[in-house]
Amino acid sequence: MEITSEQTKYTLDESRIPKAWYNIAADLPVPPAPVLHPGTLQPIGPDDLAPLFPMSIIAQEVTTDREVEIPDPVRDVYRLWRPTPLYRARRLEAALDLPDDIRIFYKYEGTSPAGSHKPNTAVAQAFYNKEAGVKRITTETGAGQWGSALAMACAFYGIELKVYMVKVSYEQKPYRRSLMETWGATCVPSPSPDTNAGRQILAEHPDSTGSLGIAISEAVEDAATRDDTKYSLGSVLNHVLLHQTVIGEEALEQIAMADAWPDVIVGCVGGGSNFAGLTFPFVREKLKGKDVRIVATEPAACPTLTRGVYAYDFGDTAKLTPLVKMHTLGHGFVPAGIHAGGLRYHGAAPLVSLLLDQGLIEAKAVRQNPTFAAAIIFARSEGIPPAPESAHAIRVAIDEALAARERGEAKTILFGLSGHGHFDLSAYDAYLAGNLVDYEHPQEAIDEALHALPTV
Amino acid sequence: MEITSEQTKYTLDESRIPKAWYNIAADLPVPPAPVLHPGTLQPIGPDDLAPLFPMSIIAQEVTTDREVEIPDPVRDVYRLWRPTPLYRARRLEAALDLPDDIRIFYKYEGTSPAGSHKPNTAVAQAFYNKEAGVKRITTETGAGQWGSALAMACAFYGIELKVYMVKVSYEQKPYRRSLMETWGATCVPSPSPDTNAGRQILAEHPDSTGSLGIAISEAVEDAATRDDTKYSLGSVLNHVLLHQTVIGEEALEQIAMADAWPDVIVGCVGGGSNFAGLTFPFVREKLKGKDVRIVATEPAACPTLTRGVYAYDFGDTAKLTPLVKMHTLGHGFVPAGIHAGGLRYHGAAPLVSLLLDQGLIEAKAVRQNPTFAAAIIFARSEGIPPAPESAHAIRVAIDEALAARERGEAKTILFGLSGHGHFDLSAYDAYLAGNLVDYEHPQEAIDEALHALPTV
Repeated sequence: MEITSEQTKYTLDESRIPKAWYNIAADLPVPPAPVLHPGTLQPIGPDDLAPLFPMSIIAQEVTTDREVEIPDPVRDVYRLWRPTPLYRARRLEAALDLPDDIRIFYKYEGTSPAGSHKPNTAVAQAFYNKEAGVKRITTETGAGQWGSALAMACAFYGIELKVYMVKVSYEQKPYRRSLMETWGATCVPSPSPDTNAGRQILAEHPDSTGSLGIAISEAVEDAATRDDTKYSLGSVLNHVLLHQTVIGEEALEQIAMADAWPDVIVGCVGGGSNFAGLTFPFVREKLKGKDVRIVATEPAACPTLTRGVYAYDFGDTAKLTPLVKMHTLGHGFVPAGIHAGGLRYHGAAPLVSLLLDQGLIEAKAVRQNPTFAAAIIFARSEGIPPAPESAHAIRVAIDEALAARERGEAKTILFGLSGHGHFDLSAYDAYLAGNLVDYEHPQEAIDEALHALPTV
Repeated sequence: MEITSEQTKYTLDESRIPKAWYNIAADLPVPPAPVLHPGTLQPIGPDDLAPLFPMSIIAQEVTTDREVEIPDPVRDVYRLWRPTPLYRARRLEAALDLPDDIRIFYKYEGTSPAGSHKPNTAVAQAFYNKEAGVKRITTETGAGQWGSALAMACAFYGIELKVYMVKVSYEQKPYRRSLMETWGATCVPSPSPDTNAGRQILAEHPDSTGSLGIAISEAVEDAATRDDTKYSLGSVLNHVLLHQTVIGEEALEQIAMADAWPDVIVGCVGGGSNFAGLTFPFVREKLKGKDVRIVATEPAACPTLTRGVYAYDFGDTAKLTPLVKMHTLGHGFVPAGIHAGGLRYHGAAPLVSLLLDQGLIEAKAVRQNPTFAAAIIFARSEGIPPAPESAHAIRVAIDEALAARERGEAKTILFGLSGHGHFDLSAYDAYLAGNLVDYEHPQEAIDEALHALPTV
């Protein structure tokens, strides 16, 4: 393919790592719904969260300050991989035979040592826990991106970590466990015999392959019942999304270096932290009057945003967590075993859900096989084999480009490449062998899960 | 650990990608020994190599020009990951409790999509083959770093690729095959039934786990016997080392940004391309009078530079390749099955061997367990789990730092981190479980292999 000599990679010096995280709560058109206590169904206060999180993180969860300063020690760790590059996907454009006025950019977070955007919040959370004197943390992980990131962060701060990993992923991706252990963490398959929640599931369903909802129940129970232990979550909550906004702040600066502005931004959504991290700073600009479409993509096998409802629900299966108002398929929903493990969650971040409800963003579901087809096109043109999660954004970015070509429109597209697929090659194997299924849940299954929503 | 706020990462804009490769042949104190025909034992000419390589590559193999211009289309592809970062290993320094005047820097090549330095030459070789109208390429790979890199490069240029992968690695690292297939290549375990060389080995040793020497025989035979096919090698040869010098040219610029000069540079050697790429531009400065020690590290299980001889030998087991003068353990030497598959080669690049013979560089062998111990220290401080090959350089860099602290000396150390270990986690697993063996070959085994050296 013939490539022009325009710039490919927009890099920033480490001095350009943002000095503050952006808190979209300061700019919301309507206030977020309060978080409710799972027992009383009344709004909770900071003290209710204290068994799980240090006070500094609870303060970030509820702050309405527009900017939250990034502590220098956290920026010091960010320098190991930040700022991350913004790419003009010139080789992908050529592979798609796009005209000159259709341009694709992507912000790549796979340059972090853990291979995804997750360390942006893992490092911040480990730092605040260390400051609070916490010696041990528990968490859950799906495909393993989050568990790996937190294992690395805990290694930096000398904090003990126990990871409850969804069993189906634990077995599909054994090297994720090795990676966590290399960084010094302990990783067990969930449901595990180590918690009441796990034992109960195992008693009822000895062959359970687990789910994020179950693994969250285990990690929360472990932290809540031990004085020396706090809990850490890799997505969904406000402070997690906050920490990820370094992605979008850098991207804003880099897209300006390219003398461009995106007509459309695409990001994949599991819990929503990668999507929020890239897009919230652009939403801020949109609220100031800039024109931009923002598209959240999700798997058709777990269509939280496109087929779920906007309602109060639990974050976990065992109903241990507070209730949050979010797009949800119901806390009992068990998504099909697609390879994008990071997108197999029944809910979506309250802040992302609110933006969808307000019409500030759109949502689109894509199936597994077309997603991997896009991943292969991307790997063979841009070189990077994407994580299956990120490939959902690639699929929609390609579809946007092809639709613009069809209509003869100029278009600038920006998407988030949240991570590489080095630990997901069994999924590529299955795709190339023609063994992937395009799971889509019948409406009855979704209706049934929605019936179990709590009455608030 | 407490970290000061000094700079961590020295990044260059893509405009700083070198415009020329550096050819050390122009500056050698003695001319390199001629390459000999395996049949006649007479010096070979370009025509003898024509069945295997396009003429443009053969010309680079023998040129004495000091600078070889990098074609713009190759620089265009380099922009996907180059310039690579140079790091000040501040967190490793803190973990080792080093005083302020002992500094460690590393040049990191794992940011390439294939995860190592190998794409620097893979892309160049694929480009020249494409220019020459070549439709199909064969190669061998050990741990898979090279095969992956060439698979990616061939995807960019639409060239068919067949990779003969050393069987023990093919079985240890199945995801390397998946990665190559994701980029569109075919990968078979070697020895294979697809070539005479492979069939002969299988007939004599049906359980052979293979070796780089055997895999080279297969790939060379395949290319030499098909008109539409050329062969590509990932190390050892002059043109391969030439292409890698972008590493050292960038590092020279970056270490100057840090206002530093290395007292010692450390790189691991299998065939020698990563080591040469980083160090040859510094050897050029050394020949001009700059003071710097340069240390090549290798596994004690394959001690080519420290226990081999400087003599003419074949590059492969089946004696199909030309004879080159190099440090060698004998073409029949089968190294123990250590996890650093990329360092399991009986010989070393002629240019690296000549520099060792001339006293311009030193060599040091390290054992497997201390090497992985260094890898863990590095992963838990700097975040990056290194490739087992690269960990050999980390081990010696740490030893240099600790020795300097012992002696109360100031010291600036630069090492090459040639790749990450994302596809080597089974090795970490084995190390953490205490299952790694510190292989070291008895002198008789080495003597026996050396007896088989050809008489020239």
